Amino acid sequence: MTGFALPEIQAIGAEIMARAETLGAISEGGPGVTRLTCTPEHRRAFEVIHGWMAEAGMTSHVDAVGNLVGRYDGAEPGAPALMSGSHQDTVRQGGKYDGMLGFLVPLSGVAALHKAGIRFPFAIEIPIFSDEEGVRYGTSLFGSKALAGTFDLAELERVDANGITLRQALVDFGCDPDAIPAIARRPEDVLAFLEVHIEQGPVLEAEGLPIGVVDAFAGGDRIRVTVTGDAGHAGTVPMGRRKDALTAASEMVLAVEEMAAADGLVGTVGWLEVKPGAINVIPGSVAFTIDLRGPDDGERRRVRGLLLERLSEIAARRGVSAEMENIYEILAQRCTPWMVRQAEAAVRAEGVEPLTLYSGAGHDAMAMADLTAIAMLFVRCLRGVSHNPAESITTEDAGTAARTWLRFVQDFRPEPISDR
Amino acid sequence: MTGFALPEIQAIGAEIMARAETLGAISEGGPGVTRLTCTPEHRRAFEVIHGWMAEAGMTSHVDAVGNLVGRYDGAEPGAPALMSGSHQDTVRQGGKYDGMLGFLVPLSGVAALHKAGIRFPFAIEIPIFSDEEGVRYGTSLFGSKALAGTFDLAELERVDANGITLRQALVDFGCDPDAIPAIARRPEDVLAFLEVHIEQGPVLEAEGLPIGVVDAFAGGDRIRVTVTGDAGHAGTVPMGRRKDALTAASEMVLAVEEMAAADGLVGTVGWLEVKPGAINVIPGSVAFTIDLRGPDDGERRRVRGLLLERLSEIAARRGVSAEMENIYEILAQRCTPWMVRQAEAAVRAEGVEPLTLYSGAGHDAMAMADLTAIAMLFVRCLRGVSHNPAESITTEDAGTAARTWLRFVQDFRPEPISDR
Repeated sequence: MTGFALPEIQAIGAEIMARAETLGAISEGGPGVTRLTCTPEHRRAFEVIHGWMAEAGMTSHVDAVGNLVGRYDGAEPGAPALMSGSHQDTVRQGGKYDGMLGFLVPLSGVAALHKAGIRFPFAIEIPIFSDEEGVRYGTSLFGSKALAGTFDLAELERVDANGITLRQALVDFGCDPDAIPAIARRPEDVLAFLEVHIEQGPVLEAEGLPIGVVDAFAGGDRIRVTVTGDAGHAGTVPMGRRKDALTAASEMVLAVEEMAAADGLVGTVGWLEVKPGAINVIPGSVAFTIDLRGPDDGERRRVRGLLLERLSEIAARRGVSAEMENIYEILAQRCTPWMVRQAEAAVRAEGVEPLTLYSGAGHDAMAMADLTAIAMLFVRCLRGVSHNPAESITTEDAGTAARTWLRFVQDFRPEPISDR
Repeated sequence: MTGFALPEIQAIGAEIMARAETLGAISEGGPGVTRLTCTPEHRRAFEVIHGWMAEAGMTSHVDAVGNLVGRYDGAEPGAPALMSGSHQDTVRQGGKYDGMLGFLVPLSGVAALHKAGIRFPFAIEIPIFSDEEGVRYGTSLFGSKALAGTFDLAELERVDANGITLRQALVDFGCDPDAIPAIARRPEDVLAFLEVHIEQGPVLEAEGLPIGVVDAFAGGDRIRVTVTGDAGHAGTVPMGRRKDALTAASEMVLAVEEMAAADGLVGTVGWLEVKPGAINVIPGSVAFTIDLRGPDDGERRRVRGLLLERLSEIAARRGVSAEMENIYEILAQRCTPWMVRQAEAAVRAEGVEPLTLYSGAGHDAMAMADLTAIAMLFVRCLRGVSHNPAESITTEDAGTAARTWLRFVQDFRPEPISDR
C-alpha cells in the first residue's frame, strides 16, 4: 500500500454525488426516488452500476434473489472477501442517498484502488441488495438475508399489490428463485461486512461531525392499541357524561412521548384512526400504533411494561376500554467489537473524532450479522431527513466517507468472527 | 273537548312503537335504519304513512321538495294550522326514533281526536320533512326550509355521491322543483310549530323524567385546525429534536375538552387525520375539527377566543405551526316564550315536572322559527344514544309524549308570533 495517495475529498465526493444524481433519476414518476424491487427501474439502475463496476476492475453478476454483486479480487484469486454494500431500493418518494451511498462509496473506493493497481490479501465484494425497504412485498432485507442464509423460501409466495408473487417477479427479472439457498455464503468465505449509510437522524449534524460509527442497533416494539368508548352526539352529551375514545387516546399519545423521553428511548405514535370520524360525533373508537425503540432490551421492556400500565390507568379513569397487542418485537443487536474498533480508527485517522451512536433504524448489516462480523459508518445528512425527496448530504461528507472507507480497507485486519 | 278521554299510555304508546318498527324496516341494507331523501325507501315510507294519515281522517300530499304533508282540518275549512312534525330521513345506520317520533306522536294524537270526532278552531298539519340530516346532499333541513320560505334554489344544483343533482332527484321522485318557492307558507296561515324529538342526550334519563321542554338551541362553531411539524424516522430522531404534529394535536384535543368542560359548553374533536400515517414515521401533519357549542353566544365566542389562543401557545411551545379556520358558525336561538310556557303546562298536566333544557343538536324547528312560533318536546332515550342502531325509547315514554302532545293541542291558545 505504500505509495497509495488517498483521493482528494472534493474529487471523490463529486464522483459519488454525480452518480447519486444519475441513479436518482432512475425512478417511477412523482417527486423523489421510487425504485422498487424487480422493476424496470431496478434493471436500469443495475445496467448503469454494472458499467461502473467494470470501470473499477470488478466482475459482477445478478444473483438468484436479484442482488447485483461486484467482486474486486484479492492478490490471490478465490481469497475470502471483505464485503461492503447496501440496497438499491427506496421507499415511495424517497431520497437519493438512503441505500445508494452504501455502495457508491465502496465503488468509488475500489475504483481508486484499481487505478493505483492495489490488491489486498482479501477480495472486496460490493453487494447491491435488491430489497431492504420491503415496500413491494412487505418483507424487508430479503437481499441480504439470502446471502446470510436466513431467507425463508415461504416469502416467495408473498404477492404485491397487483397479485404478482415474489417468485414470479424474480423469474420475470431473470432470476432463478429455486437457486436462492445456493447463494448463501459460507462464513469462511466472508471476513466481515461494513455498511456505509446516511444517519437518517440529526445527531451527527448537531455534533458537527461528518461521520460516525454505529456500535448497536436498537431493539423495538410495535404495539397496537384500540380504545373503545361511546360514540355520541357532539351537541347533546354533556362533557361529564362522555366516554370519548379520542380524548383518552390523546392522553395515551402524550404518555408515550413523556415516558420514552424520560427513559432515553424513542417512542412514536405514527398511525392513528378515529371512528366514526364525523365532525359532529364523539369518537367511539380510536386505534393507534406505538413504535418504541432503545439500545438496551431490558430497559426497553421495563418501560414498555410501565407504559402499558399507564395506558390501562388512563382508560380506567376515563371509563373506556383499551386493548393492547404487542404485534412485533426485535431485540437490540451489537455490532462486532473489533469491527467497531477498526472503523473508529479509520474515522480518527481521517481527522474526525469517532463518535459511536446506535442505529434506531434497521439495515442490511443486521441481516449480515448472522453470517459475519459487522459495523456501520453513518454519514451526516441535512436535518436528519430521510425517506423523503429532501434527503441531502454534502459533497465534502461523501468524500470524507470515501476516504474513511479507504483507510478502513487499507488497515483491515480480520479477526475471528466468534469475537462478537 | 269535554268528554274526550285521553288514550291509555300503554295503548297509544304501543301503536307508536309498532309503527316505528314498521318504518324502521324500510331501510337500505346493513344494521340500523338508512333512509335517505328521494330514494325508493323514502317513497315506500310515504306510501305507508299516507295510509296512516287517511285512517286518521287527514288529507295528504307530497309537495315540491319531497315533504309529505297531512292536514286534519279545523271546525272551519281553511283555518290556519298548528303544525307538528319532523323528518323521515336518517343518518346512515341510524335509529328508528330520530325524526320518526316527531310525526308518529302527532299522527297517533290526531287519530285519537278523529276517533272521538273532535275538531278545533284551527287545523292540525303534520309535515314529514324529506331531509333534515343532510346525508345525501350535505345540506340539511331543506324540507323545513322550503316551508319556511328560506330554501336557497342554488342548493338544487348540489350533486350526490353518484353525480345526481338534487333537482334531478326531486324530478325522479315526482316533484316539481320549480314550484318550491310556491310551497313557502304565509305566516298568517300557520299558528305555531311544535316538534317532538328524542333527546339524543342523557339529561332526561339522569333526571328520571320521560319528557322535557326545549327552550333554546345552542349556537356553535366548527373550526378546522391543521398542525404542521416535521415528519421523520421513528427510530432515529431523538425525542428532544422532534416536531411531532400528533403529540401537539393531542395536547390540543385535551385543551378543547378541558376548556369546554370548565365553561359549561360542549367541545368535541370528532375527526382527526394523521399524515403520513405510517407506524414508523413521526407524524408530519395532523388535521382535525373542533365542534364547540353552547346556549350563550357571547360566552361561546369568549371561550372560542381563549381556546384558539391556547392552541397557538401549544404550537409555539412545540415548534410546530397551527392553522385555524372557523368554517361555520351558527348563533344560538331561543324558542318562542309563549310556546314554551304552553308546552310546560302540558307536561305538568301529564304529571311530569317540566324541566327545560337546551338542544345541542339542530332540528327542523330551527328552520320553522323563520316562519312561526316554535317549541319542542324532548323524549327520554336510552343512555342518550342516537344516530345509532341502538337508539331506544320505552313504550311508556312514547305514550306519555302522545298524551302530553294531546294536552298541548287541547289547550293550545295561539298568541302573536311577534312575542318571540
